[in-house]
Amino acid sequence: MSWGVEHLPYGVFSRHEGETPRVGVRYGEHVVDLAGALHDEVFATGSLNAFMARGSAAWRDTRAVLQNKLRTDPGAVEAHLVPLDQVRLHLPFEVADYVDFYCSLEHASNLGRMFRPNEEPLKPNWRHLPVGYHGRAGTVVVSGTPVVRPSGQRGAGVFGPSAKLDIEAELGFVVGAPTTLGERAGRFADHVFGVTLVNDWSARDIQAWEYVPLGPFLGKSFATSVSPWITPLDALSEARVPGVAQDPEPLDYLRRDEPWGLDLTLEIALNGDVVSRPPYRGMYWTPDQMLAHMTVNGASLRTGDLYASGTISGADPDQRGSLIELTWNGTEPLKLPDGSSRSFLEDGDTITITATAPGPNGTLLTLGEVTGTILPAR
Amino acid sequence: MSWGVEHLPYGVFSRHEGETPRVGVRYGEHVVDLAGALHDEVFATGSLNAFMARGSAAWRDTRAVLQNKLRTDPGAVEAHLVPLDQVRLHLPFEVADYVDFYCSLEHASNLGRMFRPNEEPLKPNWRHLPVGYHGRAGTVVVSGTPVVRPSGQRGAGVFGPSAKLDIEAELGFVVGAPTTLGERAGRFADHVFGVTLVNDWSARDIQAWEYVPLGPFLGKSFATSVSPWITPLDALSEARVPGVAQDPEPLDYLRRDEPWGLDLTLEIALNGDVVSRPPYRGMYWTPDQMLAHMTVNGASLRTGDLYASGTISGADPDQRGSLIELTWNGTEPLKLPDGSSRSFLEDGDTITITATAPGPNGTLLTLGEVTGTILPAR
Repeated sequence: MSWGVEHLPYGVFSRHEGETPRVGVRYGEHVVDLAGALHDEVFATGSLNAFMARGSAAWRDTRAVLQNKLRTDPGAVEAHLVPLDQVRLHLPFEVADYVDFYCSLEHASNLGRMFRPNEEPLKPNWRHLPVGYHGRAGTVVVSGTPVVRPSGQRGAGVFGPSAKLDIEAELGFVVGAPTTLGERAGRFADHVFGVTLVNDWSARDIQAWEYVPLGPFLGKSFATSVSPWITPLDALSEARVPGVAQDPEPLDYLRRDEPWGLDLTLEIALNGDVVSRPPYRGMYWTPDQMLAHMTVNGASLRTGDLYASGTISGADPDQRGSLIELTWNGTEPLKLPDGSSRSFLEDGDTITITATAPGPNGTLLTLGEVTGTILPAR
Repeated sequence: MSWGVEHLPYGVFSRHEGETPRVGVRYGEHVVDLAGALHDEVFATGSLNAFMARGSAAWRDTRAVLQNKLRTDPGAVEAHLVPLDQVRLHLPFEVADYVDFYCSLEHASNLGRMFRPNEEPLKPNWRHLPVGYHGRAGTVVVSGTPVVRPSGQRGAGVFGPSAKLDIEAELGFVVGAPTTLGERAGRFADHVFGVTLVNDWSARDIQAWEYVPLGPFLGKSFATSVSPWITPLDALSEARVPGVAQDPEPLDYLRRDEPWGLDLTLEIALNGDVVSRPPYRGMYWTPDQMLAHMTVNGASLRTGDLYASGTISGADPDQRGSLIELTWNGTEPLKLPDGSSRSFLEDGDTITITATAPGPNGTLLTLGEVTGTILPAR
């Protein structure tokens, strides 16, 4: 099953209003209450951060102990199982800094063609480094949180609700083990705790007007949604693949020492209809390269840092990870099965992003979904 | 005096290794230990955040009570005074999100001329909105923290320590009272707790290569220094001035309802020699406008958010707030009194930024300085 002993993603849940949220892992249609099952109060602290700060050896040990219990003595865990439909899921970690990269060659090329039609689609730096920027950590919300359509400037003297509200389907990486200021990060798996699906909601009209020369700001900062479940890296061992070939060869600090490409396939559904299936494995820059780049200048990592891949777009039109690409900036609207069409999101629309990956022993892992519904502008 | 009862800036201090830091206010050459003097444990929590979260009425009351005590019964406070030279000063607040604006017309024009010599110096959006972007909150450090020269890509295939390490003299605004996601901020003084000097260290060669199209990233993220003392807004009542005239007239949501221009004069010293005196009062966009812009899309504020003005540069050459402007990208090196010259920072250089402002009753307030020394690249 998708949520069996080979997966065990981490989340934070509460059983009733007012309870301090607790850390659990999803197991089938239940949540294992870890503070109870493992007799460890680090899981009763309201977020994953304290546990993640313990480092990769502790992550591995905890997973091994729990897998062993579930396999050999499930009865001992039974008292700590809570039915999924009886819990509320919370943002699973306190987000320290949020960085968004731009790692899909197809996505960067598509946006370059649309936003800067008279130039080379890729900027000269793109193949030399994973381009990234900081987003707003305080507006990272858990899947299910409604998204209010943002208002803002859409041109000189033009103000109002965004008319080009969009999505970006991404994969996010959650940092567990920090570094010291002035030092570079070490091995990817020693710092990164796990992965989560990300929808980086984007108001394209606000973004297009504001983003020169300092980058996206209000076009992105109103909300970024993440899955309630963080899949630990160890659950993705069967999904690891080499990254795609890179030309020119990256500088030493960006050299890939281990295969951290990931064979995940995402699925984007708009009001229940699948509109795209972006493949993660074709991304140009891999997550270990993003981590090396982010810290090469001595910038420190904190527990809870989140960095995301940028929109995942494949080479085929039905593999694009944003509406601006799927509809070519609204010029080729999507036809939906109900007869309606979409250039960008309408009020009431629900976007759900899911993903699958090969799991251990021939299983197929389903990552925790990230979903959100658009509310009208205020 | 500069640190009399009319000022009372807030900071966080400890008296010995291992002590949980405590909140104090600077009073002359002493720190008032507020947890003791006011019998309130909110000041024994290691940062200003819990106190700031109480909101502007509590900030005003606390200041009034303390001023009253110091004026009418100084003996009662005496037991809670700690000599400044016996304390270590810490980062005074936990930084939630850090946003950096770009509010000086002179600075934006100067950088436009240097970075994009064949275009209009100001981008079309600049006079319509305060351009800003998110910086790295996790590398905001307290004054006195050494700054390791960052390494990074400085061009295609070029890697090494930054050869254009620079400063940016800025004024920072610390958010105390939060907002709810989806809502705009209210009055400036209901949200902003106080101000601090900021040095937004910048590696110009890294920045120039990386910043298109998503803005500055590693050229800035290695360190941002702030003063240990947060001057409360109420101490700046005599420094308030109308903002400069704006053309075109800003949209409604950016209308200035109260005068929040500030008559501060900064001073930048390089190894003790003053190299510039940037005036804050001439900034094009005022801090109430920055706050309104930052939240107009519904992005929420958190206690501990920091936003900064961007480099403060005046119209005269000796009022420029960065070395790239003072030396015109290194083409006109600064001559220092010791006979040496500088295009950008050398290892061992110390930059200290101070500021003064008119205070109540004809006094002159001196803001807490922000200083840092460059260490060689690792």
